[in-house]
Amino acid sequence: MSLLAVGTVAFDTVETPFGKAERILGGSATYITLAARFFSDDVRLNAVVGRDFPDTFVELLRERGVNLDGLVRDDTDDSFFWAGRYHYDLNQRDTLATHLNVLANFEPDLPLSYRTSNVVCLGNLDPTVQINVLNQVEKPDLVVLDTMNYWIANTPDALKEVLRRVDVLAINDAEARELSGEPNLVKAARIIRSMGPKTLIIKKGEHGALLFTGDTIFSAPGFPLEDIHDPTGAGDTFLGGFAGYLARTAEFSPSSFKRAVVMGSALASFVVQAFGPEQLLGLTHEQVDDRVAAFHHLSLVPEGLLTGA
Amino acid sequence: MSLLAVGTVAFDTVETPFGKAERILGGSATYITLAARFFSDDVRLNAVVGRDFPDTFVELLRERGVNLDGLVRDDTDDSFFWAGRYHYDLNQRDTLATHLNVLANFEPDLPLSYRTSNVVCLGNLDPTVQINVLNQVEKPDLVVLDTMNYWIANTPDALKEVLRRVDVLAINDAEARELSGEPNLVKAARIIRSMGPKTLIIKKGEHGALLFTGDTIFSAPGFPLEDIHDPTGAGDTFLGGFAGYLARTAEFSPSSFKRAVVMGSALASFVVQAFGPEQLLGLTHEQVDDRVAAFHHLSLVPEGLLTGA
Repeated sequence: MSLLAVGTVAFDTVETPFGKAERILGGSATYITLAARFFSDDVRLNAVVGRDFPDTFVELLRERGVNLDGLVRDDTDDSFFWAGRYHYDLNQRDTLATHLNVLANFEPDLPLSYRTSNVVCLGNLDPTVQINVLNQVEKPDLVVLDTMNYWIANTPDALKEVLRRVDVLAINDAEARELSGEPNLVKAARIIRSMGPKTLIIKKGEHGALLFTGDTIFSAPGFPLEDIHDPTGAGDTFLGGFAGYLARTAEFSPSSFKRAVVMGSALASFVVQAFGPEQLLGLTHEQVDDRVAAFHHLSLVPEGLLTGA
Repeated sequence: MSLLAVGTVAFDTVETPFGKAERILGGSATYITLAARFFSDDVRLNAVVGRDFPDTFVELLRERGVNLDGLVRDDTDDSFFWAGRYHYDLNQRDTLATHLNVLANFEPDLPLSYRTSNVVCLGNLDPTVQINVLNQVEKPDLVVLDTMNYWIANTPDALKEVLRRVDVLAINDAEARELSGEPNLVKAARIIRSMGPKTLIIKKGEHGALLFTGDTIFSAPGFPLEDIHDPTGAGDTFLGGFAGYLARTAEFSPSSFKRAVVMGSALASFVVQAFGPEQLLGLTHEQVDDRVAAFHHLSLVPEGLLTGA
C-alpha cells in the first residue's frame, strides 16, 4: 500500500549533554518517511521548505527512495527552524527557538498522484492544515494522526474536527491527559476514543507505549538503552515505523497494530542513539529484526506462571 | 521455604482525591507479609508496635496465618504513624506527618525460631537496623532489600554496608538515579549491582518494573487500571509477592525472578484499588491467576513479527 506523510521538513539545532548539532536535517515528515521507507516501497512526502534549504538534504531523502513530488519550495522565506536543549536526564527539554518561516503560509496542495494514497500519516501540524490534507485524499484506508499540546490548548475545535476523521491517534501521556482532562490513562483513552479515533497510542518515552484498539490494551516496553544521544524525532520515527509497517502488511487487525507498535518502537530506539535522523539512514533489516527480537524477549514472561506453582 | 519480613507495622492516614482513611492498618511489614502469605505457608514477621496498637489489627494478621512470634509491643510509646496526601494524578504525594514513636528505639532481637529463615525480606528501615537483622540470621538463601531516598542521602555508608550483603535490591527509578548518581537507568543498574546486589528491580509505579539479573533485562508492564484509590503499600506488596513467590518455588533463576516480578506486580495492582491492605485480605488464587493471565496478555507480542513480513 502507498503511504502519504504530511508534516515538516526543517532545520533542527539540538543541544544535549552529549554534544550539539547545528542546523541538521529534521522535521516530522523527514523522520516519518525515512522510517516508513523501511517497510513500504511507496512513501510520499508532502511538505514545504524555504529558500535556504540545501539540495544535499533533499538528495538524502531522494536517495532513500522517498517520493518527493509533493515537496514544495517556497522562495519567499526560510525553512522551518527548531532549536532545543535537553536536560541531563533527557526526559526534559527546553525549546530555545521555533521559527515557522515558510510553515506559516503552508497550504498543502497534493499532487494528483498523491490523492489516492492508502495510508495517510499526518505529522504534528495546525489541525486546520491536517483537515485540508484529508479533504484532498480520496477514501484512504487508514488515517494516522499526531498532534501536540499547543493545538490542544489553542485550537481545540479544529483539533476535534480532525479527530473525528482519523483512525489512529498517537500522542504522549501528558497530551492524552490534557486532551481528555483526565489523569487516569485508561479513562483518558476511553474519552479520547469517543472523539473519533478507534485506535489510540499513548507514547510514554523511555517507558514505552500503550495501544488501545478494539477491546485490547497492549503495552510495549521502552527499550533499555545505555546511550541515548538525542531524543529528537523519536516520536515521528515511531509513527513512521508504525504506519509504514501497516502499509506493508495492509492488515488493520489488533494483532497487526501490536506488531506495528513494536516495529515503531524498534525504529525509534535506533534513532535516539545518534543526532538527527543519522541512524535511520544506514539501518539494515537484519539490525531491526535483531532489535525486534530483543524487544520480544524483554517482556516475555516465562511459561509456568501460576500462583499454585 | 520460610520467609522472614522485617519492617514496620503502623497506622496510616491517607488522603486521596477519592477519599480519606484515618489511622488504618499500614506499615511495610504488614503489606509484605500479607502479600507473601499468598504464596508461602511460613511467613514470619518482625516489627514493633506501641501501646496504642489495637488487638483487632494484630488479630487480622494472625488470622491470615502470619507468624507473629516476632511482633514486639513497646509500651513506652505510641506506634509508628504516617500521614500522606496524594495529588490528583496519584503519582505525586506529600508526607503530612511521620511520627517514628516506638520505631526510634527499635532494635530487632529475632526469636530463635526466626534465625534460620530461608528468604529474608527487609522492608524500608534504617540500614543499621537492616544490618542488625542480617547479623542474626544464619546463612539465608536469599536476602531482598528495600530502601528509600532518606537513607541514600543521610546514611550512605551504612546503606552501602547492607547492600554488600543482599541478593536483590528493589527501589524506584528516582532512588536508582540518586543512589548511582546516573540518570540513565541501564548505567545506573550496572553501578548499583557493583555495590552488591546481583539482582536489581527498578519499580516505576504506573510504568511497571525493570528487572536486571544475570545478563537479562526484563520489563514488566504496569497494569492499566481505571480505579486507583490508594497507592500506599503498592511497593511493599510488590516486594512481598516477589519474595513470597520465590520462597514458594525455592528457585532463584532468571526465569523464576521474572515470574516473581509478575506475581509481585499482579498483587500490587490489586492493593491500589482500595484504601490500605483491604484488597489483600479477601483475594483468591483464582483472582490473582486471572490478573496474571491479563498481565501476560498485555505485553504479549503476536507471532510473525519480522520486518520482511
